[in-house]
Amino acid sequence: MSNNPYLQGLDKNPANYVALSPLSFIERTASVYPARTSVVHGARVFNWSQTYTRCRQLAGALAAKGVAKGDTVAVMLSNVPAMFEAHFGVPMVGAVLNTLNTRLDAEAIAFMLGHGEAKVLITDPEFAEVVAAALELLDGPKPLVIDALDPEYPGTTCVGEIEYEDFIAEGDPDFAWQLPADEWDAIALNYTSGTTGNPKGVVYHHRGAYLNAASNIISWGMPAHAVYLWTLPMFHCNGWCFPWTMAANAGVNVCLRKVDPALIFELIRRYKVSHMCGAPIVYGMMINAPEKLREGIDHKVSGLIAGAAPPAAIIEGAERMGFDITHVYGLTETYGPASVCAKHPEWDALPIDRRAERNGRQGVRNHMQEAITVLDPLTMAPVPADGEMMGEIMFRGNIVMKGYLKNEKATTESFDGGWFHTGDLAVLHPDGYVKIKDRSKDVIISGGENISSLEVEEVLFRHPAVMMAAVVAKPDDKWGEVPAAYIEVKEDAQVTAEDIIEHCRGHLARFKVPKHIEFCVLPKTSTGKIQKFVLRDQARHNAETSEGAKA
Amino acid sequence: MSNNPYLQGLDKNPANYVALSPLSFIERTASVYPARTSVVHGARVFNWSQTYTRCRQLAGALAAKGVAKGDTVAVMLSNVPAMFEAHFGVPMVGAVLNTLNTRLDAEAIAFMLGHGEAKVLITDPEFAEVVAAALELLDGPKPLVIDALDPEYPGTTCVGEIEYEDFIAEGDPDFAWQLPADEWDAIALNYTSGTTGNPKGVVYHHRGAYLNAASNIISWGMPAHAVYLWTLPMFHCNGWCFPWTMAANAGVNVCLRKVDPALIFELIRRYKVSHMCGAPIVYGMMINAPEKLREGIDHKVSGLIAGAAPPAAIIEGAERMGFDITHVYGLTETYGPASVCAKHPEWDALPIDRRAERNGRQGVRNHMQEAITVLDPLTMAPVPADGEMMGEIMFRGNIVMKGYLKNEKATTESFDGGWFHTGDLAVLHPDGYVKIKDRSKDVIISGGENISSLEVEEVLFRHPAVMMAAVVAKPDDKWGEVPAAYIEVKEDAQVTAEDIIEHCRGHLARFKVPKHIEFCVLPKTSTGKIQKFVLRDQARHNAETSEGAKA
Repeated sequence: MSNNPYLQGLDKNPANYVALSPLSFIERTASVYPARTSVVHGARVFNWSQTYTRCRQLAGALAAKGVAKGDTVAVMLSNVPAMFEAHFGVPMVGAVLNTLNTRLDAEAIAFMLGHGEAKVLITDPEFAEVVAAALELLDGPKPLVIDALDPEYPGTTCVGEIEYEDFIAEGDPDFAWQLPADEWDAIALNYTSGTTGNPKGVVYHHRGAYLNAASNIISWGMPAHAVYLWTLPMFHCNGWCFPWTMAANAGVNVCLRKVDPALIFELIRRYKVSHMCGAPIVYGMMINAPEKLREGIDHKVSGLIAGAAPPAAIIEGAERMGFDITHVYGLTETYGPASVCAKHPEWDALPIDRRAERNGRQGVRNHMQEAITVLDPLTMAPVPADGEMMGEIMFRGNIVMKGYLKNEKATTESFDGGWFHTGDLAVLHPDGYVKIKDRSKDVIISGGENISSLEVEEVLFRHPAVMMAAVVAKPDDKWGEVPAAYIEVKEDAQVTAEDIIEHCRGHLARFKVPKHIEFCVLPKTSTGKIQKFVLRDQARHNAETSEGAKA
Repeated sequence: MSNNPYLQGLDKNPANYVALSPLSFIERTASVYPARTSVVHGARVFNWSQTYTRCRQLAGALAAKGVAKGDTVAVMLSNVPAMFEAHFGVPMVGAVLNTLNTRLDAEAIAFMLGHGEAKVLITDPEFAEVVAAALELLDGPKPLVIDALDPEYPGTTCVGEIEYEDFIAEGDPDFAWQLPADEWDAIALNYTSGTTGNPKGVVYHHRGAYLNAASNIISWGMPAHAVYLWTLPMFHCNGWCFPWTMAANAGVNVCLRKVDPALIFELIRRYKVSHMCGAPIVYGMMINAPEKLREGIDHKVSGLIAGAAPPAAIIEGAERMGFDITHVYGLTETYGPASVCAKHPEWDALPIDRRAERNGRQGVRNHMQEAITVLDPLTMAPVPADGEMMGEIMFRGNIVMKGYLKNEKATTESFDGGWFHTGDLAVLHPDGYVKIKDRSKDVIISGGENISSLEVEEVLFRHPAVMMAAVVAKPDDKWGEVPAAYIEVKEDAQVTAEDIIEHCRGHLARFKVPKHIEFCVLPKTSTGKIQKFVLRDQARHNAETSEGAKA
């Protein structure tokens, strides 16, 4: 190849090669659309020029405190302007943004601050108590703590040395930030909420953040200047990279501290919100909210939904509200959703059940992710696209993490064989769409037969009284395991265990019908996922002590 | 930095790093939307599954002939399906696609085949004579020549060894193509139509083609499944990367051999064309076409326009047709347009002249280009954003060529100081938008004062009888140079040199008013650009021999 002319005198130079970074999006938007609204939060309204300046001030103030490349800046913030600004100001000094899950306890926060070696922590008064306790627990050097007060929150308890507005006021509004020297440099650190053991620190790079921010626009078909409502926590996989997407989109970020249907509908009406993201529970709360909250809203809202396949009731309810819902799938390790259940117009003609079935799949890769597939995790051979044979979902591409911080073993394992292993079990449909059957640990093995807890849950969801449901394995002397169903019932609905079992028998093979039914409020993680490990413990305990409702 | 945890155990691996290449877009679309229409040409209609298979067959057939990484495959093709397929099939084997300008003569084609060392040439019967002559002229090894016959073209003269359909029929439809090992690998070679000297071979890489293809979607706000009419030659900067854009967009490519308004309107009507690109002359022909050709078209068409700032008449005429025109700017060296005159809604309220003025600027960088600016080419200092001080337009970013093939001197010069030098003179407006004043060689220096030929041309365009106009320097004993205007008049229009001069006096300082007016058919390059060097020669000759019309 050495005499190949395409390899001679055609090298990279500063004119033709620049590191990919989402920071370049905010620079463009601030320059092209300085006066357009960037962020609104209660009575506070910023334009892109102001937001960009505030990000540079934050960067300048951090730099003045000695924060530099490779340092960690942690934030314990709601979806407030400071949270949005941190997504730019922190990487502008080459530092890594660690968004902490605001629903965690002091012990978990202390672990993350210590493991991530945070030099700075920006925190919200709502979490003052937890943060104070976490700082107490923290061994080693304490971070500089900055309190971001918020007029939209009544509390003003401070635990730090300086208030956020005072801190950034010290920063140079013309701070000469630099793109990273290498697009592989880290931009964010996100701890996974593991169910056992210590959380793992997932590291993102500038390249992936840039590409996923753009891919969100293309894969969702977002027009310029979208109005985006922050129903999804920004601490969750950096809000699926939407802070960076909205900078590229030159749109409006409508902040939201709390998922409250009345406030959500008010903001949708006031700002003509066009886009939002969330778990099924967010849409469920909106659908089940009093009809009068929706009065006066007559424009279309596009919603991404992830965390669990949206049941037919959610899709139907969302359509009734005039929402256009798209199902997406991913993990913390893939910057949030990296696959999309891309729609086909012919699905619109299907009855709601079949439409929900099509739209509820994990789908296909986003435009800028390279691959999603289902492989046998032992042989790494692809499963046939028959909708039957189960395997493990694997991702490959530029929207996959750098790895787990200070955890080479877990990193190596997760990338075994050149694919990222999700731990989710799925089938490939004949049209190439991935459909989750279960987390590997959620499969119930009963009399040697595999039962997908998801399949049973989907049947439960079809019962009109069921709001949410989770199915786990319950130890059983005869069968090894049997399915146990935990059900949250809709307000005002009346239903018995016998009704549920009768319903399941109509749709499931007998061995798949839950042998234990319990009505309860389901335990959920801070991001709204059902904590199956709690239910599994309960089921185990129940097997040891009583019989429950037998089918 | 060596103990920075973000630099340890977080390396690239096949799961988290994949070379960016537009080839990944066609793979995705063929897999997700196999049955959607990809390419239509006359009676021939392909879907994405078929097109992808044909591309793999082309790649397989090329590989069987020994074509491999770093080899050049030249094509002399109209906007036909084979041309679209070449944009994928050729890079699938790691080869470089050299799209030849079909309007060039045998000598130029022979030079390009020789300089680019083409191993294969795919050619269209329309150009059989030129190609045969070029092959005669070509020293050294001859390429394998493949004739792509076309039912939409009456001629069937072949100059090669095999017909295209027979050639790809030999190729493996499951050919296992590979992404490039390095995203910096060359994907295309485009010769610039230099006005003097030999053409320079501009080399593109996979990374830039991928990013520009995506940037086209984001910067233009293209919804998925656009219907794109090929009014722009695909040989021109790879059709501004739109073959790759349309693969990402999963849209429809409507082929077009020839810019013929009757056919264009028929295709727009039949396929509900939503998007098209072209030089002002394309839109001018459409605007000036008989009204009845447009009957039955009532949907919006989005058009990109480049090559010259669209005069008010074009913008107004396009709006009357229901077109939404966006002005873009770039060069062969920037993969076609890499800046866009991004619109602001408040412009819509302006009177047409001021709207045309705003929309006619070269604008701001595309989303995925890193920078466009105006610098003093000597000091490399930015000009003030005052709309007055002239400098040279410079680009920087990932959508800038690798360099010129086998021309290290020109490559180095063009990248001097870490920016790509365009040779276009411009000012920066206070809103940060770039506005071309002239090519450096098009400035007229009269009595020590600089006259922008563009400014004079824009005034000429406002005269209702003027179809096209070009202003160049004419040597003058007293003033050094004076402006000379060459004008193409609209059909049926009546106008005299005196009328034109009177019109100019109303809008220009006296020294800028053309001192020589000539009505003629303007000489144009194969891509529709006016050949100012021909006019400059004429003006020089005219100065030596006669006086012309004096003002």
